[in-house]
Amino acid sequence: MAKRGIVTLLTDFGLADPYVAEMKGVILGIAPEVTLVDVTHQVPSGDVMAGAFVLRQSLPYFPVGTVHVVVVDPTVGTERRIIAARYAGQTIVFPDNGLITFVDRDQPLEQMVAVRNEHYFLAPGVSATFHGRDVMAPVAAHIARGLALDQLGPAPESFKLLDIPPPCEDVDGSLVGQVIYVDKFGNLISGISADELDLVPGDETGPEIFCGGVSVGALQTSYASAPAGEPVALINSMSLLEVAVNCGRACDVLSAGLGAAIRVARRGRRGGS
Amino acid sequence: MAKRGIVTLLTDFGLADPYVAEMKGVILGIAPEVTLVDVTHQVPSGDVMAGAFVLRQSLPYFPVGTVHVVVVDPTVGTERRIIAARYAGQTIVFPDNGLITFVDRDQPLEQMVAVRNEHYFLAPGVSATFHGRDVMAPVAAHIARGLALDQLGPAPESFKLLDIPPPCEDVDGSLVGQVIYVDKFGNLISGISADELDLVPGDETGPEIFCGGVSVGALQTSYASAPAGEPVALINSMSLLEVAVNCGRACDVLSAGLGAAIRVARRGRRGGS
Amino acid sequence: MAKRGIVTLLTDFGLADPYVAEMKGVILGIAPEVTLVDVTHQVPSGDVMAGAFVLRQSLPYFPVGTVHVVVVDPTVGTERRIIAARYAGQTIVFPDNGLITFVDRDQPLEQMVAVRNEHYFLAPGVSATFHGRDVMAPVAAHIARGLALDQLGPAPESFKLLDIPPPCEDVDGSLVGQVIYVDKFGNLISGISADELDLVPGDETGPEIFCGGVSVGALQTSYASAPAGEPVALINSMSLLEVAVNCGRACDVLSAGLGAAIRVARRGRRGGS
Repeated sequence: MAKRGIVTLLTDFGLADPYVAEMKGVILGIAPEVTLVDVTHQVPSGDVMAGAFVLRQSLPYFPVGTVHVVVVDPTVGTERRIIAARYAGQTIVFPDNGLITFVDRDQPLEQMVAVRNEHYFLAPGVSATFHGRDVMAPVAAHIARGLALDQLGPAPESFKLLDIPPPCEDVDGSLVGQVIYVDKFGNLISGISADELDLVPGDETGPEIFCGGVSVGALQTSYASAPAGEPVALINSMSLLEVAVNCGRACDVLSAGLGAAIRVARRGRRGGS
Repeated sequence: MAKRGIVTLLTDFGLADPYVAEMKGVILGIAPEVTLVDVTHQVPSGDVMAGAFVLRQSLPYFPVGTVHVVVVDPTVGTERRIIAARYAGQTIVFPDNGLITFVDRDQPLEQMVAVRNEHYFLAPGVSATFHGRDVMAPVAAHIARGLALDQLGPAPESFKLLDIPPPCEDVDGSLVGQVIYVDKFGNLISGISADELDLVPGDETGPEIFCGGVSVGALQTSYASAPAGEPVALINSMSLLEVAVNCGRACDVLSAGLGAAIRVARRGRRGGS
Repeated sequence: MAKRGIVTLLTDFGLADPYVAEMKGVILGIAPEVTLVDVTHQVPSGDVMAGAFVLRQSLPYFPVGTVHVVVVDPTVGTERRIIAARYAGQTIVFPDNGLITFVDRDQPLEQMVAVRNEHYFLAPGVSATFHGRDVMAPVAAHIARGLALDQLGPAPESFKLLDIPPPCEDVDGSLVGQVIYVDKFGNLISGISADELDLVPGDETGPEIFCGGVSVGALQTSYASAPAGEPVALINSMSLLEVAVNCGRACDVLSAGLGAAIRVARRGRRGGS
């Protein structure tokens, strides 16, 4: 059987209002054969960083040819551009406000255009407040049907990236990063990757992990490696260093959240942040 | 590729319980080729007006032939009818309690039947508490497969509409309506359409908008036309007059909600409500 | 038109994080033609009993051949097995922690295997924390494409069931059960089936129902059989005895929840629990 295209939706619209359904109706009107997938519609309102993170995590699991529509767009109606970009054989359609930051760190850019060709917008006109439905949804549907990106507009001279510092080495050789996402289980997900963590020397048990100055011990392999209610550090399913609490919520137990310092300390030296 | 049919679901069931999945299983058992779309399942429990509003907003974006199942049904198990109606080439299956009110205001009725033919209900019997699964879902699936509405039952003598006053002109020539929906961003959506608003005279900046007696100034074109935290009136993506707060929640900032008065005042006269 | 396979997802992941989308991407990469259905992702975190209940309720409404992936998995990363089992011509893929309890009570087991064949896991490796994505999703996709269960591993010697007492007869001939699920309307759903209830003698109005010691009267046929705000007992759409409040929340009105005693008392004798 022939592959049908996939279009995913990632927004901060929530699920109560008709906005997501309007986008889906527009897409199915243009490309009735596509499979629609909701990545999430519960990005906190206007939180571009969270949207960028969720996009980066889900993208590697979709097949080549998938089209992702990402609408976290607090400046809709202003002059900010709409962009269509190809990474890893997949296309992302998004407002140029930094949503592409984490994907762009991990994947080589293959093609990028500023979306300008109104022929592919929703007739008869574009509202000032809902470019997700009027521009991004129909453009994504046309791409899913095979439209070449260069039909949409020229390459932009530049595009916006969020200013988020990558993990860095401290004077004592420790690696210092921060919590960049808190998931619904209360797990504290850092920006420190498994590869970066491997560079920190430790004794036979490996380096010691600190969250907000509190030691959570050495790296473990599963949540259940710690007693119930106790914190545990591990490499999570995103290949990122995560601090969790077995059968509990790390964000509550450790009173830590977005931006909290995560330190990977060489053994035998004083840790904390 | 041939179009596959679309069946949408709009309920107050929430997403935690098995009810929505039961309906989808029933539909896919009858019409395995359809594309299912969730409009929302987060209509407040039993809130027929909110369900009617969301239906009206999403319907115009779906293609001809789409079937919508709308289950906000606080009187399930009583003698209220189930209706299948065609507007704009699309079919809506719903309990006769006013859910069709806003669609019926905007679109000409093409056909309506009272659903009585038990041949198309879920075998072996109909529960007293879940007509969404036992009657509306299977009937919608059969319609998506091509069943003619007149096979379901006769045209009803009448059908129920909600008693919601349309916007009206005040003695001073102002137009007075009310908030009929509050979305998840806290935006206050009025029942006043762009066309009605065009009839109110104003000076060069247009008429002045009041919400609950508080002026929010002249009509703007985007949320970002106001400073962050400040209210702004605009025609929204539904072509309705909306009062919002840039980067904030209008319902909180203005302490206004469902039923709050929205006044479009002629310039040079005293506004407020 | 040929039937496309159906894969359902039932998890405690919530809808905010990328986890569900990662699973869907994996499934569509292997089986692009399947229809995906979300049963729910709002099982309370780690609540195996609630997951088992929702699975049991939704399964009978899906067609033969459906594959259900159930991931409520608080012990992920430990030695607990992953199982694929066939009941009623449908396949369930789940961690062996009791999730199959209620399905196994109602349906005869047709086939069961312990999932071991890594050939069908997600390449290049399995994370310690997300077997839903790395094992269960790809295995389900292969089953939906026609893979025979015996290709996945051998039959297990045993499997885990939750220890939930079935309803039992009291010394006075009353039937005593408990609330096993509270839905989003606040309805109190007991483990007492319509068949079991038929065995309790009553006078012409049938037996009297008590919830947490409070009488809610005789069995009725619909929510609207009681005045607004008053409790009502009925056989619900799952053929289970349910205590509800018309236009209200029984869990609040009756101050009852999971585990509350439900008594079906013979008439003429003292009830209560």
